[in-house]
Amino acid sequence: MSPARVKYRLGDIVSRFGGELLGDPGFAVSQVASLENGTAEHVGFFSGAKYREQLQNSAVGAVILAPRDREATALPRIVSDNPYAYFARVSALFNPGPEIEPGIHPSAVVEPSARIDPSAAVGPLSYVGRDVRVGARSVIEAGCCLGDNVAIGGDCRLYPRVVIYHDCVIGDRVILHSGAVIGADGFGLAKDDGRWLKIPQIGRVVIGDDVEIGANTTVDRGALDDTVIEEGVKLDNQIQVAHNVRIGAHTAMAGCVGIAGSARIGSHCTVGGAAMILGHLEIADHVNISVATLITKSIDRPGTYTSTVPFAEHRAWLRNAAHLRHLDSLAEKVRQLEQKLNELERNKP
Amino acid sequence: MSPARVKYRLGDIVSRFGGELLGDPGFAVSQVASLENGTAEHVGFFSGAKYREQLQNSAVGAVILAPRDREATALPRIVSDNPYAYFARVSALFNPGPEIEPGIHPSAVVEPSARIDPSAAVGPLSYVGRDVRVGARSVIEAGCCLGDNVAIGGDCRLYPRVVIYHDCVIGDRVILHSGAVIGADGFGLAKDDGRWLKIPQIGRVVIGDDVEIGANTTVDRGALDDTVIEEGVKLDNQIQVAHNVRIGAHTAMAGCVGIAGSARIGSHCTVGGAAMILGHLEIADHVNISVATLITKSIDRPGTYTSTVPFAEHRAWLRNAAHLRHLDSLAEKVRQLEQKLNELERNKP
Amino acid sequence: MSPARVKYRLGDIVSRFGGELLGDPGFAVSQVASLENGTAEHVGFFSGAKYREQLQNSAVGAVILAPRDREATALPRIVSDNPYAYFARVSALFNPGPEIEPGIHPSAVVEPSARIDPSAAVGPLSYVGRDVRVGARSVIEAGCCLGDNVAIGGDCRLYPRVVIYHDCVIGDRVILHSGAVIGADGFGLAKDDGRWLKIPQIGRVVIGDDVEIGANTTVDRGALDDTVIEEGVKLDNQIQVAHNVRIGAHTAMAGCVGIAGSARIGSHCTVGGAAMILGHLEIADHVNISVATLITKSIDRPGTYTSTVPFAEHRAWLRNAAHLRHLDSLAEKVRQLEQKLNELERNKP
Repeated sequence: MSPARVKYRLGDIVSRFGGELLGDPGFAVSQVASLENGTAEHVGFFSGAKYREQLQNSAVGAVILAPRDREATALPRIVSDNPYAYFARVSALFNPGPEIEPGIHPSAVVEPSARIDPSAAVGPLSYVGRDVRVGARSVIEAGCCLGDNVAIGGDCRLYPRVVIYHDCVIGDRVILHSGAVIGADGFGLAKDDGRWLKIPQIGRVVIGDDVEIGANTTVDRGALDDTVIEEGVKLDNQIQVAHNVRIGAHTAMAGCVGIAGSARIGSHCTVGGAAMILGHLEIADHVNISVATLITKSIDRPGTYTSTVPFAEHRAWLRNAAHLRHLDSLAEKVRQLEQKLNELERNKP
Repeated sequence: MSPARVKYRLGDIVSRFGGELLGDPGFAVSQVASLENGTAEHVGFFSGAKYREQLQNSAVGAVILAPRDREATALPRIVSDNPYAYFARVSALFNPGPEIEPGIHPSAVVEPSARIDPSAAVGPLSYVGRDVRVGARSVIEAGCCLGDNVAIGGDCRLYPRVVIYHDCVIGDRVILHSGAVIGADGFGLAKDDGRWLKIPQIGRVVIGDDVEIGANTTVDRGALDDTVIEEGVKLDNQIQVAHNVRIGAHTAMAGCVGIAGSARIGSHCTVGGAAMILGHLEIADHVNISVATLITKSIDRPGTYTSTVPFAEHRAWLRNAAHLRHLDSLAEKVRQLEQKLNELERNKP
Repeated sequence: MSPARVKYRLGDIVSRFGGELLGDPGFAVSQVASLENGTAEHVGFFSGAKYREQLQNSAVGAVILAPRDREATALPRIVSDNPYAYFARVSALFNPGPEIEPGIHPSAVVEPSARIDPSAAVGPLSYVGRDVRVGARSVIEAGCCLGDNVAIGGDCRLYPRVVIYHDCVIGDRVILHSGAVIGADGFGLAKDDGRWLKIPQIGRVVIGDDVEIGANTTVDRGALDDTVIEEGVKLDNQIQVAHNVRIGAHTAMAGCVGIAGSARIGSHCTVGGAAMILGHLEIADHVNISVATLITKSIDRPGTYTSTVPFAEHRAWLRNAAHLRHLDSLAEKVRQLEQKLNELERNKP
């Protein structure tokens, strides 16, 4: 929200990102905005018919839209085959992220053996352990704690109060949001005479390039081998990834998901919010798991999988739900009725 | 648990908060307590018939109760139409919260452009960014991180290790518990040729007066417009509020709830623990959502809504649950039986 | 991952921990490893028939296994009646945890009235409040915040950025992982004229010996009496324990579980990931609750309890799930069919 925002002319935007411009190429905008709240200096995004009225009433100066909607407005507009990705690029142009002030804040505590690239930044009141490496242009914001021997690539951003336990490896261009905990011990216990013995967790967490991990998400270190998050994976907030899980490249998971130990999730999957995936199973590539769905066994084919329960008005639901505990006898009753009826039919005079 | 606790006579309490006193107005108590563990210096709360035996055996010196229970004990007692709210007020009288020691702890890092009210406190090892404003008598405890341009009203309390990202706005008398993350990026991604492009999240989080937010709860900033938590909202621990959600005034949500992006929740709603609300839908005012319920579409009328599944002994449940995947064929079978039976009946001799 | 790891001969291991050794007692190993990735210097663990092929192809130098599997390999091997617990002990031998460097880091802020045992360590940028006690050989890592009057026993480890609110009590040999919040206010609210009044939460959290609590897990302080976690309890990540819950000794809970207020969980229970337990109920000892199961009433007998919903391919599921809202009428239909059919049978010529 800096006061002197740079303006871009639509013609320049199209030169940079492609797409077809309809309208004045000299028209300049200074920020992206919603159709609802944007004004003349903003460029909006039209996602389709459901928002047509909003588009008609919008005060934005220009719009990004799909070919099928090219005539949905008379405003200056950019037509793109993937208008949402186009909008993402334009927004990134207007919102390049805060500038980096390289160097180590005097209040940070950095062990002498840590190697921080001179172009990187370590924020106030952060702790950087022994032999840690931080790559070029990476930013460790305030209050982070990096354990011994952690390796962080280039162009990463750790928001305030991220913790990474010892020995974990983070790729390039990784974003970790506040409260994320990478590399805490997995839940490894052996029962011994009624008590739990802790299994030391000696694997690491290895995170690939271009991964983003949301606020208060936890990714546990492996028990023996590593927990692996492949490149391009996007995890929302409050997700729990247990030890020795592997998440394939470019898979995205919404908030509150839980993945139990040693599950292997494929590439290019999506997992809806609050879905739970049991341990020691495999999910194929290109699988979509619906919101709040429980995956109890391996899935070997692409597709969408679901176990959501429809809600209802409370008393109506209770009347129905009571039968859930007696489905077996209901099914058995139906089977008996079928049999009797068949008999009756056979014996028809 | 300070040693020299102030005592209040029952007569003074009734003068202050109303209610009808039965018993000695000079009887003095020094703290609230449970009926189970209280002693003669404590005032307890009787919530109704279920706890009558506990009341009979209790060693508390006095009790707060409802008119219908006025004769449930011979102890000195205060009768109130809303005894639980009365008890809350008495407890607040005995437990006024820690005193504020105004000023900035020498170990805190406060950017010079931040404006901290002289009556406010910034605790040890906290970071306060550029242009932050903190209002009168607000307390920022140890280890908090406030991003640039955050605004915090008066009489707020931020427990240790709260993070607020840049530009977010917090009202008056707001309580934020440890580990809460306000204003992290929403989960905004556009698919582009098999990879995810990040949509910059340029909205803010705006939190009204008298809001309380629990430990490790996350409230994401808006994608374009703001995420809004209206006045008097109470959020328990480990809740995830996605970008552009709006939660109406005086709505309360129990722990582990998840609200997906752009959902609009009405005022005076309650949401049970671990309930999930999908995105881009609207919930009317005065709606109660049951524990562990999944809300998949808008609700336009007050009422209680539920989708909980009853549990059972494991093997019995498995026998029943298997039928869940064949309900459609079961229903179809029943339809066919009906038809055949009707035919049989029609053809009866 | 230190370079000069200590080696142990199999004979020495068996002298120390018991078990039967088959093979060369002089054979030495330096670390535990998975069968998949171990090499000649590693000792692996064979958990049973499912992994027989992995065992055949493994490059590990030695194996720990059960009596029934004593002939499953020709490698040097240790036979134990509880091979997983045996493996835990051997792993703990090889991985004794980081050495403690006693003392208070100069960047930590410790109130003068706190009593830190001289053999304990307080890490960089941690805050220790008034009258806190930290026992012998306990380690408070970087960025932790301990409120006034917190008591921590001996041989504890608090990973970076743990918060403990005032007055809470932690036993001996307790492990708290990063982001854990112990003692935040419970969710206590009284409705008063459409607004919520806060009930001061004046109980504590009391945690017994040998408890481990996972990353970003929250345990709320009691409203009046204490929240109690008994000895030997193991809680995974992202668990929410509400006020006045009591968890019995040696109970273990997997990630993302939620326990509502005043629930009493027995000893030696297990709770699967994402299970939810409602408030004010009692769970007997030796109860196992399945993953993602909702417990809505007390359980007075040992056993396994479940309410999981099986997933299916999306469209198939939707066809089935639609009937969930009409089970009552389906059951009624079946009842009527039964009746009609009985009538028909009675009237058979």
